[in-house]
Amino acid sequence: MKFISLLGATGSIGMQTLDVIRSHPDEFRLVAMSVGRNIDRAREIIEEFSPRIVSVADEENFKKLKSEYKGKVDVCFGEDGLIEVATYDQAHMVVSAVVGSVGLVPTLKAIEAKKTIALANKETLVTAGHLVMREAKKHGVDILPVDSEHSAIFQCLQGEKKKNIEKIILTASGGSFRDRTREQLKNVTVAEALRHPNWSMGAKITIDSATMMNKGLEIIEAHWLFQLPYEQIDVLLHRESIIHSLVQFHDGSVIAQLGTPDMRVPIQYALTYPDRLPLPTTKRLNLAEVATLHFQTVDFDRYRCLKFAYEAGKIGGTMPTVLNAANEEAVAAFLSEKISFLAIEELIERAMERHVPIMEPDLLAIRETDQETRDYVKSLLT
Amino acid sequence: MKFISLLGATGSIGMQTLDVIRSHPDEFRLVAMSVGRNIDRAREIIEEFSPRIVSVADEENFKKLKSEYKGKVDVCFGEDGLIEVATYDQAHMVVSAVVGSVGLVPTLKAIEAKKTIALANKETLVTAGHLVMREAKKHGVDILPVDSEHSAIFQCLQGEKKKNIEKIILTASGGSFRDRTREQLKNVTVAEALRHPNWSMGAKITIDSATMMNKGLEIIEAHWLFQLPYEQIDVLLHRESIIHSLVQFHDGSVIAQLGTPDMRVPIQYALTYPDRLPLPTTKRLNLAEVATLHFQTVDFDRYRCLKFAYEAGKIGGTMPTVLNAANEEAVAAFLSEKISFLAIEELIERAMERHVPIMEPDLLAIRETDQETRDYVKSLLT
Repeated sequence: MKFISLLGATGSIGMQTLDVIRSHPDEFRLVAMSVGRNIDRAREIIEEFSPRIVSVADEENFKKLKSEYKGKVDVCFGEDGLIEVATYDQAHMVVSAVVGSVGLVPTLKAIEAKKTIALANKETLVTAGHLVMREAKKHGVDILPVDSEHSAIFQCLQGEKKKNIEKIILTASGGSFRDRTREQLKNVTVAEALRHPNWSMGAKITIDSATMMNKGLEIIEAHWLFQLPYEQIDVLLHRESIIHSLVQFHDGSVIAQLGTPDMRVPIQYALTYPDRLPLPTTKRLNLAEVATLHFQTVDFDRYRCLKFAYEAGKIGGTMPTVLNAANEEAVAAFLSEKISFLAIEELIERAMERHVPIMEPDLLAIRETDQETRDYVKSLLT
Repeated sequence: MKFISLLGATGSIGMQTLDVIRSHPDEFRLVAMSVGRNIDRAREIIEEFSPRIVSVADEENFKKLKSEYKGKVDVCFGEDGLIEVATYDQAHMVVSAVVGSVGLVPTLKAIEAKKTIALANKETLVTAGHLVMREAKKHGVDILPVDSEHSAIFQCLQGEKKKNIEKIILTASGGSFRDRTREQLKNVTVAEALRHPNWSMGAKITIDSATMMNKGLEIIEAHWLFQLPYEQIDVLLHRESIIHSLVQFHDGSVIAQLGTPDMRVPIQYALTYPDRLPLPTTKRLNLAEVATLHFQTVDFDRYRCLKFAYEAGKIGGTMPTVLNAANEEAVAAFLSEKISFLAIEELIERAMERHVPIMEPDLLAIRETDQETRDYVKSLLT
């Protein structure tokens, strides 16, 4: 029986993680969780899974839940609450499914507490990959990917040696606007951007998918997770999202992981690793039914965010933090209809251009850079 | 340094095995080999690789080589010679690349002598899979597949557990006549049948590919190699031969092995297993260049040989031996233009219909069934 602590239980990945836990009551138990402001859903989860500790985002909800579940559930809040949940004594594994750089410190604390990490929060590795991987190594902790692409690569690497990797290839669906030219992107609406062709995900990641910043964050994440230089990380456009990613070895052999788009598969793999458990409710891949798979190269002029991500990754230091923070602010501005779709990449470009990167940054430098970048991007919006 | 004994050195797989050995002089050495009647090529190989023992098919060539290489190479011939090569003391590994059921006894002897087996000769497992796997288990010997499909599955299974397999899926190009109806198959010529769209292979296997008996033999081979019931072995039409095969696990995750069609990749994998070595000369897979992959279900009425193979496999006992022997004779008759293309399957069907299978056959029963079937098929030709 694995005891799970889940950060971000009410989000898309969180809810699907609960679905996996629900399917295997003899294997997994939810013992701790954090939620944001969705208190109604938090109550439902508490009723169903009886976690021992719950953290909420703000004090108001903390007070409500504390009185409602007195004597039954420990309730806490804020960043301290998040850390309490991440380091909860009885948890064997922490699933980090929060969105944004808020996931960083709790993840580092969970590593220190020697919890196995199932990481869905890519910003953690993007902004502080060097710190996270160093701590993981120091404490002998596994960082298991939950993103479908990284899980795919991780699965392809089982039984293989790192020295034999020639390159890894992340596939990209191209997002909601893949069939539009840059000219046609000028006046797209938020509603259009939120219509992803293959995956049903949260709003932020769906916009990131349309700009392909999502893939950009993923290449930085892959760089850290698999400890590979950017020259060995490729991106391939693959509209159907059936091949989730591939690894090419130096004998020319390529191993790929495939499936119908269903995040429960990589989530469950992280929970069961190195074993697998049945997941009867996921739709089986039927390639004859799919009939055709398409592939094309990625145009870096069409998808400028991907180019920025490679640049930020190669520069290193605090530059990926700037990339990520500028993107978070710009996407938030687009979602609240303050800026146009193409302005997202303009803001990121401007933030990167003015930043002088700090190499090997510590947590403080990262947090300062993050805040400074957000302030700068916000200043451009007014 | 691995010392290699190669059965069938002058054939297609044999020559490509030599190419792999040639590329890695510090890793592999050819110490023993068998050839058929291609003595000129045998001489070239002896000059280049200096094996210590060489077996030829007949006594005449034996005498020639014996006097030519006196004091330099041990020469032997016939089935005894084949066994000497297969059990050669200094060899660590035997690559069985002979064509047809002649490979069976030498393989069994090599297993007894505790050699690791790289098996390209599928008839060995088709006719006597139960004996080969039993002996391999008894002597703690690995049977490593060389066929591209089985190598693909074997690679996909690295780091995985057998209990988690839901099914394996062998891909099939559909062969030279995949775009023809049965009606259009009536008057095809040998030359047309030998034009395989993706792979350059020997004549027999190219015809087997056109009838899809090749895939039929492969499902039986897969049944034994991976110890799976036929219900867990599927075939999928995939024209491009880029995905070499796939494994579906019970969590819905599918792992596939891909590459440009080049037999040196699976050959080398068997030689380097569980490691990999570089193979710079194989063309790297560029999926964006390939652009599209196609998949469709296999029509068992169109490809009757595949249906026969599933039937023979499920019946078991000596039935796969009949399938294989009838096929070998029928293909030989087609290649020498004695029968039409569609007559191949008719002959196999008739041979299977009249056979009363012997269960758990020993080597003698297999050999008798093999001979009896060949005699019967030949009797139908006159």
